[in-house]
Amino acid sequence: MLARNRTVGRFTNAKSNTFESDLPEFEPYNKGLEPRGTQDEATKAANLSVLSVDMRVTENKAEHITDKYKNTNLIVRRNKEFTIIIKFDRDFNKEQDNVVMEFLIGSKPDENKDTYITISIGKEKRDVSWKSRVINIQGKDVTVGITPDPSCIVGRFRSFTVVVSDLGKQRTPRNPDTDVYVLFNPWDSADQVYMQKEEDRQEYVLNDVGVIFIGDFSEVSSRPWNYGQFEQGILDACLLILDAAKVPLVYRGNATEVIRQASALLNAQDDNGVLIGNWSGEYSEGTSPTAWTGSTEILLKYAKEGATPVAFAQCWVFAGVLNTFLRCLGLPARVITNYASAHDNTGNLKTDIILDEDGKMDKERTRDSIWNYHCWNEVYMKRTDLPEKFWGWQVVDATPQETSDGLYRCGPTSVSAVKEGELSYPFDARFVFAELNSDVIYHKADKTGKTKIIYVDTAYVGKLTVTKRCNSNEYEDITSTYKYPEGSLKERETMQMAERRGVSIGNYFPLTEAGVDMEVQADVVKMGEDLKLNIKIKNQTTEKCTMSIILTGCVVFYTGVTSSVFKSENKDVTVEPSQTETLQISVQAVEYMRDLVEQSNLLFVVYGHIEELNQSLSSMKVVTLLPPALSIQITGTPQVGKELMVSVEFLNPYNFILKDVQLRLDGPGLIRTKLKKYRQIFPGGSIKFKESIIPLISGKKTLIAVLDCAELRQVTNEIKFEVLKKATVKPVTEEVEKETIEKERVVENVNNNP
Amino acid sequence: MLARNRTVGRFTNAKSNTFESDLPEFEPYNKGLEPRGTQDEATKAANLSVLSVDMRVTENKAEHITDKYKNTNLIVRRNKEFTIIIKFDRDFNKEQDNVVMEFLIGSKPDENKDTYITISIGKEKRDVSWKSRVINIQGKDVTVGITPDPSCIVGRFRSFTVVVSDLGKQRTPRNPDTDVYVLFNPWDSADQVYMQKEEDRQEYVLNDVGVIFIGDFSEVSSRPWNYGQFEQGILDACLLILDAAKVPLVYRGNATEVIRQASALLNAQDDNGVLIGNWSGEYSEGTSPTAWTGSTEILLKYAKEGATPVAFAQCWVFAGVLNTFLRCLGLPARVITNYASAHDNTGNLKTDIILDEDGKMDKERTRDSIWNYHCWNEVYMKRTDLPEKFWGWQVVDATPQETSDGLYRCGPTSVSAVKEGELSYPFDARFVFAELNSDVIYHKADKTGKTKIIYVDTAYVGKLTVTKRCNSNEYEDITSTYKYPEGSLKERETMQMAERRGVSIGNYFPLTEAGVDMEVQADVVKMGEDLKLNIKIKNQTTEKCTMSIILTGCVVFYTGVTSSVFKSENKDVTVEPSQTETLQISVQAVEYMRDLVEQSNLLFVVYGHIEELNQSLSSMKVVTLLPPALSIQITGTPQVGKELMVSVEFLNPYNFILKDVQLRLDGPGLIRTKLKKYRQIFPGGSIKFKESIIPLISGKKTLIAVLDCAELRQVTNEIKFEVLKKATVKPVTEEVEKETIEKERVVENVNNNP
Repeated sequence: MLARNRTVGRFTNAKSNTFESDLPEFEPYNKGLEPRGTQDEATKAANLSVLSVDMRVTENKAEHITDKYKNTNLIVRRNKEFTIIIKFDRDFNKEQDNVVMEFLIGSKPDENKDTYITISIGKEKRDVSWKSRVINIQGKDVTVGITPDPSCIVGRFRSFTVVVSDLGKQRTPRNPDTDVYVLFNPWDSADQVYMQKEEDRQEYVLNDVGVIFIGDFSEVSSRPWNYGQFEQGILDACLLILDAAKVPLVYRGNATEVIRQASALLNAQDDNGVLIGNWSGEYSEGTSPTAWTGSTEILLKYAKEGATPVAFAQCWVFAGVLNTFLRCLGLPARVITNYASAHDNTGNLKTDIILDEDGKMDKERTRDSIWNYHCWNEVYMKRTDLPEKFWGWQVVDATPQETSDGLYRCGPTSVSAVKEGELSYPFDARFVFAELNSDVIYHKADKTGKTKIIYVDTAYVGKLTVTKRCNSNEYEDITSTYKYPEGSLKERETMQMAERRGVSIGNYFPLTEAGVDMEVQADVVKMGEDLKLNIKIKNQTTEKCTMSIILTGCVVFYTGVTSSVFKSENKDVTVEPSQTETLQISVQAVEYMRDLVEQSNLLFVVYGHIEELNQSLSSMKVVTLLPPALSIQITGTPQVGKELMVSVEFLNPYNFILKDVQLRLDGPGLIRTKLKKYRQIFPGGSIKFKESIIPLISGKKTLIAVLDCAELRQVTNEIKFEVLKKATVKPVTEEVEKETIEKERVVENVNNNP
Repeated sequence: MLARNRTVGRFTNAKSNTFESDLPEFEPYNKGLEPRGTQDEATKAANLSVLSVDMRVTENKAEHITDKYKNTNLIVRRNKEFTIIIKFDRDFNKEQDNVVMEFLIGSKPDENKDTYITISIGKEKRDVSWKSRVINIQGKDVTVGITPDPSCIVGRFRSFTVVVSDLGKQRTPRNPDTDVYVLFNPWDSADQVYMQKEEDRQEYVLNDVGVIFIGDFSEVSSRPWNYGQFEQGILDACLLILDAAKVPLVYRGNATEVIRQASALLNAQDDNGVLIGNWSGEYSEGTSPTAWTGSTEILLKYAKEGATPVAFAQCWVFAGVLNTFLRCLGLPARVITNYASAHDNTGNLKTDIILDEDGKMDKERTRDSIWNYHCWNEVYMKRTDLPEKFWGWQVVDATPQETSDGLYRCGPTSVSAVKEGELSYPFDARFVFAELNSDVIYHKADKTGKTKIIYVDTAYVGKLTVTKRCNSNEYEDITSTYKYPEGSLKERETMQMAERRGVSIGNYFPLTEAGVDMEVQADVVKMGEDLKLNIKIKNQTTEKCTMSIILTGCVVFYTGVTSSVFKSENKDVTVEPSQTETLQISVQAVEYMRDLVEQSNLLFVVYGHIEELNQSLSSMKVVTLLPPALSIQITGTPQVGKELMVSVEFLNPYNFILKDVQLRLDGPGLIRTKLKKYRQIFPGGSIKFKESIIPLISGKKTLIAVLDCAELRQVTNEIKFEVLKKATVKPVTEEVEKETIEKERVVENVNNNP
């Protein structure tokens, strides 16, 4: 049957969540030629009707730690009991009455596929995956406890209550209010994504705001991100992602599968995913990747426009939105930043830098690149498909870099398997290993264009891997979870294991025996300031070294892709035996400002040739220029129901006009993303944006501001504060909250006047 | 650079074989402001020109065991030297002259991606992946030996000879005659696909004809298949498959990658692959899957129509064409048939058969199916990405069953990993494991539609796995390479390992403790004959068993998908303690003939209920009906250059007309596929097709005949004979052969008149 119904395309057979095909309200038994019963007769036969079903949404959500979700339906976690109350039209008789509850998901619910769950409430008992028990019978009211299976499908189930009589089944009509969302359960040890520490669950499942680390390993900076997984519409948007790609329901109870699918679905490279990657610098057809404050604006736009990809994203946007998706479904997740991340497109552990005949970098021939930083995600889980030692944190990466098995995706990959060089296990361990362990190979061309390896740097790539610390905005250095220390015995063993698992490890003849080291250093400066580079040359030999140094300075994307070369300088230096000389090279702001591309990274490649030894050295350094300040302030005491004033200010410190400036203000649990547009900000000119907020929920809150324009990227700030409980006695009801959200939506217009 | 050039879609970055971007014939050096040389000046400076390059095609092909390929270009295998002769316009001076040979593949040849290989012939030596040496200098003629790297890219390389002078490079013009195909090398121990035994290589790499086993495990039958990997145009068609799907060149030196890609590319489910799967019984829009004689007709049609998918295929067609692809590229490969192959679409180790209230099979609710047989391929190779114990034969399956990682493909999967239950390793081991190890679960519904498990058969699936024996058309039972014996300790250990690797093993409460066994037996009969079924009931208890038996007979596709139910019979039987009773049920030809679907398989499901124990039993049996005979005969002594008469005869033994009958005659190395069409063959009527052949090559040959129409499938026969060498002295030159092939092509028309 299956084989015959297949048509061309992916998952054509999938029974996704969005297409319902429900059961009839009355279903008579059809026994050959015997007369069938009618609906009336059946009701009479059973002499029992369901008046209402109370899903006990508020109580169950509090129990299931899903009360933060702005969603009026019941949301529960797997393998934890929730209780409902069924009201009948007469007293319920446990021994005689035969009542069944049905939970259906997808267009073709099927008992054998776990998409059609039935539980018995009355006399008949049967084997089911979900457990149930009658907790209490009070006349017409029956309280039932229901426990979804620990590995059941995650998604939105439709529920029906069925009275079974000799003539047939009488079903309650379809009622969206009795739909139940079932999520992964990191609180339950039987769940695949169980996480032991409450502190960890608070951060990796429940924290809806965070920071993502960017910059350079020598100058770690961060930008705030609103994950907003509990905001209205986000849970439905996350399920829509799976439905739009027709991910078969049978996969949706398995975290490994959900994650693997998600890594492909977050990018639009295949399957009309969520985000369109763009590293061109030209974003006028959408929103610049640097302009977003978080995931909610993106996911709501995606859902509103019927699963149309949103423009544009770069790695932290992919990682930020994937993190929302994961936490929203109950998967413990975090965003990782890997500094000096190799992007290897040959499948070998090397990144090739080609210098031309003169020692300057050859942009055309240098195809591999090293990203200043690259962001991916980790999910904490039992990889039941792998040996137990590889459980725990798993890498998943939604940024479209290389095709994994024909689709743009990467992971899940066990972090510990990467550390041990055990690269045979799925998925994409070799790619992650290369991002962390590649060597940088410097080649130099002769006049005929032939290249020769002149220098190998084994320590440049994967120097630092970080993530946000629990309950703090500082970074946690997790490099040691991915790698053994550089030069250690364990590192060599890992490399040998990786080689036995099919990775080509470069075996370079000793190139650096010269005993001369060269290092480039630079201070941190603000964009628009002059800059000093120090080239330190350490001569550890017993002979004098006469060196000619060539420095190439170019503007570079965070992806390591170089733009224009703005500086090229030759210097000669003599270093006496066992001495260190420092060459200082000045870079004026005017030299780089006119060529500056987004994110303000400068790459300096230095080539040095030692005359006496006829040997070459090479080194490089990325300088990240700091953006100007964006100020964000609040006035008034943050308290539920009380007006709070927020003001965001910015001063243009440059001697050029900033055009088409976007300013976003965002705060999960406080406001939806506000966008304000300014046509231009003149040199020395400033803007001030004020907004009034009435907090509705107490607790720790964050407001995030982002300013963005073609001339200036990554200008962000945030403010954290505690919202106090309401002073008056009257509680904030859900009705009130809903109304206010509606009001906000109207206000959320775009103001084009500065 | 990479990240920015990406657009939506798979492998958009691929540099495939078909798009060339070649180098200029003259390439001056560009040294800043120095004056550049002109072409004339460069030639003068070197004072050396290439007159011709002799690829020594005949000698090299004989050495590389590629002489069977009907292709005028040089074809070599990796890591084996081939020799060429370069003729210069003056005596070559090894110390002074600087000559380079370049081998280029793809649209953007790049030294760092191994798509631009250079080797030095003259004074300059450099590091290269391919080795070279000057073997002999005889004045103007230089004989050069070139050895491609053992892991180099497989495909068609363009070659150039370059004279290097101080002013620039002087390149020979593009000449397709000097192109070289590089293949995998099973003869070389450094190659990933090395195979030790010559007998194995003769069969799995060089045999261009074989048989594929079909039928049922109790009645193994076979059909001949023309792999035809050496036929004119087949090698180019195989490379076109990779190019059309834009498989990146960087993957094409790695057998694991090539195989994984191929398993997706052979089917048209994604990527416009080679074959369109069709199990509908309706093939009027193409050729019926049963009508093909082999792969060549399919691959040549695919190539001729610009990589358009060919209609239609079922599993043996997918496996047959994939086998051609693999052997053609030099990968040792064979076709496997797995009898009673589970097609599990839930990811669990069970196949569910649902019986209705009355014990008859419920077609609607039985979604899983067991294929009477399923064909896949095995490739012999080092899986350098896996631990060494999992090297050797690897499963690869091109039939679109389930999506593996989002695409319709399966494998490569290590056969030994499947045997050990080590299912964590890539790719798709769980799916293959389920095909061999699933349990059959019989469920029976009650009147409300609720089902209960009534019987579990753990031995039905994966009873027999076979492949063609080396140098014989008999089958070799390779079941033990996939499974430990049923019931052995090792089998239980394997199941436990599989469970630790994430497979859900069913744990069914003891159902068969009744001590009553039921088995269905049938004799082999021809299609159109009456049939006797024996239902043997063995009562091993100490009590009398009164049983009611329900037999359902339905016509079934080889995929296990059931068509119409043609028989339903109830019988009662009493079996005394420790006795065996046999119920005989007769099936008349008229009962099944009107419902018969292709491939003539009947499925009988028997349900039995034991009154005394209130227990149920179930069993099933597939009966494959034998097709009528097709006769194939030759007259005359087969000898090169001598006319040989072939006649194919068929008599319609039925009382109905056979309509739109296709008769194909095929013989690799003898003729291209001939197709003859007959509008109708009346009851008792016969056809006789005669063809004259002049063999061009001596050796063992096979002629294959296949008759096919909607009423009658799988009617095949073959004849094997030895073609003697030509009696006369004059050798058959390549010119003559070419001409005859051209002539054949004209003859190969379709005759519509009976």
